[in-house]
Amino acid sequence: MFRKVVKCAICWMPVLLVSACATSQPQPLRGTGDLGVVIERATGQVQVIETTGRRALAQVSGLGDLSHASVVFSRDSRYAYVFGRDGGLTKVDLLTASIAGRVVQAGNAIGGAISQDGRILVAQNYEPGGIKAFDSDTLELLADVPASYGADGKRSKVVGLADLPGNRFAYALFDANEIRVTDLSDPKNPKTDRYPAGKQPYDALVTPDGRYYIAGLFGEDGLSMLDLWQPEKGVRTILPGYGRGEQALPVYKMPHLRGWAVAAGRAYLPAIGRHEVLVVDLDDWKEVARIPVKSQPVFVMARPDGREVWVNFAFPDNAWMQVIDTFSNRLVDTFQPGRAILHMEFTPKGEAVWISARDDNKVLIYDTRNRQKLAELPAASPSGIFFTSRAFRTGF
Amino acid sequence: MFRKVVKCAICWMPVLLVSACATSQPQPLRGTGDLGVVIERATGQVQVIETTGRRALAQVSGLGDLSHASVVFSRDSRYAYVFGRDGGLTKVDLLTASIAGRVVQAGNAIGGAISQDGRILVAQNYEPGGIKAFDSDTLELLADVPASYGADGKRSKVVGLADLPGNRFAYALFDANEIRVTDLSDPKNPKTDRYPAGKQPYDALVTPDGRYYIAGLFGEDGLSMLDLWQPEKGVRTILPGYGRGEQALPVYKMPHLRGWAVAAGRAYLPAIGRHEVLVVDLDDWKEVARIPVKSQPVFVMARPDGREVWVNFAFPDNAWMQVIDTFSNRLVDTFQPGRAILHMEFTPKGEAVWISARDDNKVLIYDTRNRQKLAELPAASPSGIFFTSRAFRTGF
Repeated sequence: MFRKVVKCAICWMPVLLVSACATSQPQPLRGTGDLGVVIERATGQVQVIETTGRRALAQVSGLGDLSHASVVFSRDSRYAYVFGRDGGLTKVDLLTASIAGRVVQAGNAIGGAISQDGRILVAQNYEPGGIKAFDSDTLELLADVPASYGADGKRSKVVGLADLPGNRFAYALFDANEIRVTDLSDPKNPKTDRYPAGKQPYDALVTPDGRYYIAGLFGEDGLSMLDLWQPEKGVRTILPGYGRGEQALPVYKMPHLRGWAVAAGRAYLPAIGRHEVLVVDLDDWKEVARIPVKSQPVFVMARPDGREVWVNFAFPDNAWMQVIDTFSNRLVDTFQPGRAILHMEFTPKGEAVWISARDDNKVLIYDTRNRQKLAELPAASPSGIFFTSRAFRTGF
Repeated sequence: MFRKVVKCAICWMPVLLVSACATSQPQPLRGTGDLGVVIERATGQVQVIETTGRRALAQVSGLGDLSHASVVFSRDSRYAYVFGRDGGLTKVDLLTASIAGRVVQAGNAIGGAISQDGRILVAQNYEPGGIKAFDSDTLELLADVPASYGADGKRSKVVGLADLPGNRFAYALFDANEIRVTDLSDPKNPKTDRYPAGKQPYDALVTPDGRYYIAGLFGEDGLSMLDLWQPEKGVRTILPGYGRGEQALPVYKMPHLRGWAVAAGRAYLPAIGRHEVLVVDLDDWKEVARIPVKSQPVFVMARPDGREVWVNFAFPDNAWMQVIDTFSNRLVDTFQPGRAILHMEFTPKGEAVWISARDDNKVLIYDTRNRQKLAELPAASPSGIFFTSRAFRTGF
């Protein structure tokens, strides 16, 4: 409210003016370091949330098909860029809870990444297969890099996109058994290097330092690893034949790898179609341990301090979570937070974890020290949860 | 401006009110992820800066003696907490460029830290020696933990304060040759564990995962390391006698260790009083390399991707910087950015580095890929540079 005593221009008597000022209710100032978004997949909406108060601040609608959505953030952590399954790329202003821009950039997309300098967004697409680069301010198309292969120039589905230092991006071609690295430091003239890899890469991660790119393979037991500090050495197969002699199970859901499961100098990787988490040492790439878990792991995520790795599972066991102690490589907890646990996100310093329970229409917040529930928030079929601290990390 | 026609309450004549509305010029909304502060040590001021536009946004005065200042940030990255040499603790609102709170909490202080959950600030003090905990919202004193030792309960200077997971804090006692860990998860009832350490710890770092606490020693050649995942094993001496057989040089400036120099599974440590950077493997704590540098190193900082370590030096060589490639452990660059290089800060994803040149009254911004200068900003005797991305890191 605006309150002021003014003098009448005619009779010169004081007038107390009390009025709503045109700008008397601006958006309140607030920091953006503790913000995030929760994808509400069923309704094409996102909730803007705040981790300090553990609450929802607002809801933004009109983002299209969010059945497989991923999110990156602007380097000032004000804007969330939401990549939808339908190829929609929506720029959401977290401070005004409004859509600041939207383009439909492909027919079928599977996520995106943002450059080291924050100026370039890249989408990874299934249809048409390839990557596209956009100005993170205007969403103007900067580059279209088709994932063409073979004599007839067919386009491959692109998976496992990750940003690298130097405004480069690494990604894998599901149909072409390749890892590619595209340098977008001059966005109008992208330069792409190609590396033959294993059969049917389905997702990938880059280590937090941006050095090692590791692609999971659907077409064979093992993973493809590229040392980006020595790319001339080419792709190396790690954990070859990890499932040898075992009965392959039907895969109910593809595991996710991107940017998560590196702890204490080791990578914790879901064994596709198997009830195991594989542990590989980043120094020699040998298998260190193989941890039996309850079901087929989907997300295998390190708590920010790396002391614990939290795992969720594919249907029919997707109500369960398990926690691995990375010091002993033993399971330390098995619990059921809710129905259809689709995703989890740790707070930046790891004191809490937010977990989406799709079929309970809830987001659950747990204390990571004692695994006690701290809060619940209602959400419509929540899936991905993404905090602005991702803006500061490579390979997310 | 506010414009409104109102009626005089007395003569009922219309009055056109034209006035600056109390809230007619609100601070523009902006994200806080790309903000930071530059300490202007000579004038007791800080500049609020923005790394996206590479510019200064505002200046805040009245922070007292900033001759040895350090800064931490609120978990929403809106507020900078500036710890001054005179014991002043000032809460600066980066969005309004104003002082949101200030206490003078000691006679002589040497920095501070913020808890994992962001609710507790801790100052490390020389006089009186100990740590004090404050509410990060109100700056209310929560706990006073004197660093008492010996029969007569003398208080030691405290150095090397670092936050740990679980709202714990590790620090070292210069006068008592001890490392202590205080658990402030119940701030009114702090619990402190004591670990005998080497002679005269002068500063320390905790590895980014919060596991290893490494204190540099002034009183002997070597460092004290405490594995916080196995504290019962006590403190271990690493790099013992690294200067054996060498002529000790006068120490022109104590090196700084906190939270910086871990890259590619190794710690890069300044050899105190020697023209060397020591490289130790975090797996076995053996010396991997000893890199001769131009002079006595002060800050030995890893670029966020860990591929390079940047080093500045003590007087009389403090105009120089050197860059070490962590892959080859060789020097790759030696250059003179300006006079009296006191500090440097990398942008969160490492594409640029901000460098303070005190005697040129400038902050210099370099591209970390080609080490070309991108910009210069005027500043009055700039020293420390701190970006809000610190809010998301343990041990800073």
